[in-house]
Amino acid sequence: MAKIIYITGGARSGKSSLAESLAENFGSPLCYLATGEPRDQEMTERIAIHRQRRGSHWQTVEEPLLISRALASADGRYQAILVDCITLWITNLLFHYDAVEPVLDDVTALAESFSILKTPLILVSNEVGMGIVPENALARSFRDLAGRANQILAAAADDVYVTFSGIPLKLK
Amino acid sequence: MAKIIYITGGARSGKSSLAESLAENFGSPLCYLATGEPRDQEMTERIAIHRQRRGSHWQTVEEPLLISRALASADGRYQAILVDCITLWITNLLFHYDAVEPVLDDVTALAESFSILKTPLILVSNEVGMGIVPENALARSFRDLAGRANQILAAAADDVYVTFSGIPLKLK
Amino acid sequence: MAKIIYITGGARSGKSSLAESLAENFGSPLCYLATGEPRDQEMTERIAIHRQRRGSHWQTVEEPLLISRALASADGRYQAILVDCITLWITNLLFHYDAVEPVLDDVTALAESFSILKTPLILVSNEVGMGIVPENALARSFRDLAGRANQILAAAADDVYVTFSGIPLKLK
Repeated sequence: MAKIIYITGGARSGKSSLAESLAENFGSPLCYLATGEPRDQEMTERIAIHRQRRGSHWQTVEEPLLISRALASADGRYQAILVDCITLWITNLLFHYDAVEPVLDDVTALAESFSILKTPLILVSNEVGMGIVPENALARSFRDLAGRANQILAAAADDVYVTFSGIPLKLK
Repeated sequence: MAKIIYITGGARSGKSSLAESLAENFGSPLCYLATGEPRDQEMTERIAIHRQRRGSHWQTVEEPLLISRALASADGRYQAILVDCITLWITNLLFHYDAVEPVLDDVTALAESFSILKTPLILVSNEVGMGIVPENALARSFRDLAGRANQILAAAADDVYVTFSGIPLKLK
Repeated sequence: MAKIIYITGGARSGKSSLAESLAENFGSPLCYLATGEPRDQEMTERIAIHRQRRGSHWQTVEEPLLISRALASADGRYQAILVDCITLWITNLLFHYDAVEPVLDDVTALAESFSILKTPLILVSNEVGMGIVPENALARSFRDLAGRANQILAAAADDVYVTFSGIPLKLK
């Protein structure tokens, strides 16, 4: 059974750098499964910076919704697969389904697929629940959903890290 | 002297599950002291889900303001008492008093009462200070108050945990 | 080479108390380098409370922008120097330059100056990236900047702490 690593943390807290460095330990080639779609200038630039930071031994696959299918297709063809990030994937699913329950079903299906993977998997997520309760009901609902998804996936992972100011802390 | 356990963490980070599981370790019957009043549909549903998750060996007491009195009344009659949650209690007190200082007085009185309890006590709170500074002065003032209350109560507790993605981390 | 200690955490999570207590361990006299300018009533009061809490063996220097110059000037004249706080300093720099890159240059210059200091240095910062993504682009940009600054400075520090509910956790 392949190792599953879950990384959570705040914005710009070093999650992606940690994930890339843990992936590099598994060897080469590596698969970067990007869930973010470049919808605006801000995001296009950030995606380009991330891609530049990774070397040519990384192959990038873009998949905003069907993560489990993309994983099944990449499985066994790389030394490790990095999914960056779960929170954007959930955002995409929430827009797609316009309901919480089918998003949680997809998250649960992803967690259940961990046990059949042959390739080590590293997932990057975001901690979004440690600020003031958002005034807007959609933001509250998203915050709850992101927290539940983190719980489901972290429970199914072998190793879990949280990062602060670029320093990782191993939780499990 | 009974054990006092303080649990903080973000929204949907597994605080209540951890609290319930720690309480179950003390035996049965157990007292669930709920500070939340079902003001709207969203909250009514959440309270019902939480109550369903706990078994019949839990007795629920609802007390939005007079926690110390409710604790004194429950003390010695259960194997453990769980207060869920401190942040809602503080919100209720702030609406009630419309001032910060009397809220902090009640928090301090609660912390001072820990030493006379005969029944183990588990308190659930929220971390609300790790986001961007709120633009609205009331939210900033609430955030400060919640942080100060967490410091006062955690200092008086025997064990303190913070949860991330459902994984507890013991701080003390 | 003098010891560099970096402390991050949420609002009212006990960062300043921890920083002051770690500084006191180095002896006396001590330098408090305040980056906050008392712009309104709320801040004036908070600054006065902090100053009152520290004793007369602390000398306060106020410097909103030129931290590296203030450090060079204080270096060697105290048993320890405490900078409180980095997040306000970055806010001041962002208003001053009205651009992100020169702020990061100043942060990097500060990190590079650590190795030449003769006096132990304790820096207090804030974790602002663990809430919901802010709707406003300026807040998002500030959040990213604060996170990158935390990474740069924590990487260059010897010891790094994060505080929750007044309880410090040593990360490094």
